Amino acid sequence: LSQNEYALIVAGGKGTRMNTPVPKQFLELAGRPVILHTIDAFIKYSKQIKIIVVLPENDFSLWKELTVKHHFDFPVVLQTGGETRFESVKRGLDKIDGDGLVAIHDGVRPLVSKQIIAQSFKIAAQHGSAVASVPLKESLRRLEDGQSETVDRSKFRIVQTPQTFNIELIKTAYRDINDTSLTDDASVAEKAGHTINLFEGSYENIKITTAEDLLVAASLLKQQL
Amino acid sequence: LSQNEYALIVAGGKGTRMNTPVPKQFLELAGRPVILHTIDAFIKYSKQIKIIVVLPENDFSLWKELTVKHHFDFPVVLQTGGETRFESVKRGLDKIDGDGLVAIHDGVRPLVSKQIIAQSFKIAAQHGSAVASVPLKESLRRLEDGQSETVDRSKFRIVQTPQTFNIELIKTAYRDINDTSLTDDASVAEKAGHTINLFEGSYENIKITTAEDLLVAASLLKQQL
Repeated sequence: LSQNEYALIVAGGKGTRMNTPVPKQFLELAGRPVILHTIDAFIKYSKQIKIIVVLPENDFSLWKELTVKHHFDFPVVLQTGGETRFESVKRGLDKIDGDGLVAIHDGVRPLVSKQIIAQSFKIAAQHGSAVASVPLKESLRRLEDGQSETVDRSKFRIVQTPQTFNIELIKTAYRDINDTSLTDDASVAEKAGHTINLFEGSYENIKITTAEDLLVAASLLKQQL
Repeated sequence: LSQNEYALIVAGGKGTRMNTPVPKQFLELAGRPVILHTIDAFIKYSKQIKIIVVLPENDFSLWKELTVKHHFDFPVVLQTGGETRFESVKRGLDKIDGDGLVAIHDGVRPLVSKQIIAQSFKIAAQHGSAVASVPLKESLRRLEDGQSETVDRSKFRIVQTPQTFNIELIKTAYRDINDTSLTDDASVAEKAGHTINLFEGSYENIKITTAEDLLVAASLLKQQL
């Protein structure tokens, strides 16, 4: 019997971060809001998936408007986001009652493939966690005391989402580790003492945070079709 | 009096690397080969610049053909590449007789701006080196003993090109450090005992190694025009 599978889509906090690009989840990409593309990817993976969408409270009416306009009628549970990503995910996890697996995914990663989603659930079912990651394409340097030094990039991975976990594991980790500065779920699980299982993501699974990213996503999406 | 300024454009080795994307320097981007866009960027910066292009020997006739076809008539010095990037750069540096500054730049980074080129020469004139780099947009993990751990991404920079140096400094470094496994010039200069000066590059200054990268570059180029 397969386990309950949830997708927790994190669609940004209050967008008040200084000097950081604002997430583009509500902008249109090929005529459809980014966040709906993101959710579509999970529905393409499975019509049985249970979806939780964490939104800033101010964006609830915009969400309503966009789902009507774009005929989006898959049932999702909405939750109000917190001040930080940590709090938003924690509040999203509060909406899950049962056991099973949850794929935590950035609302602004619309190009995730159903293969990657499938793999993340499969690996998390076996090992408790499955975090998408990719090797670095370019050289890396570490900053130290105003200087910098070469590091071996093959020893590093860039972390993406989905980050998929056993529900009890990740709920307990978010409850026990109350560090709102943590910006990804793997760090929270790691701090709670769990080993993180990385698996190979995809360079196409980009995070859309700038106007250029949106152009890039449009190109990649066109190529997929 | 300003110093002699050189651009050393590294246009790939023999393209025999296993499992690595082949550089796309000769593919067309908006109707013009990638490598000509790259060289154009340096000419836009200065008509006085001296340009050295390192090419695989097999590609010399293709180069000739493309420069005729695209009416490219800026004088450049051609040099045959080696087995590795290290050897290609070293051979390129052999073509420089005088002193001054050299910007070593990937042939497949056509979107470098003249502002970044100008800054790299200015900083290298003051400090001996100037290496373009950008912060990481996503979380980073370090692999160790089959496990992985969170690292603080704000302590790292992704290295791009141009990597610009005092000519004597970098020529001496390439002569003294005979490590053909080194894949960027900053590592060579560092190994020779020099401090590396990083400066802020640009996310648009992408390296084109996959078909997707070429699409992305086309989008970005369209936006620049």
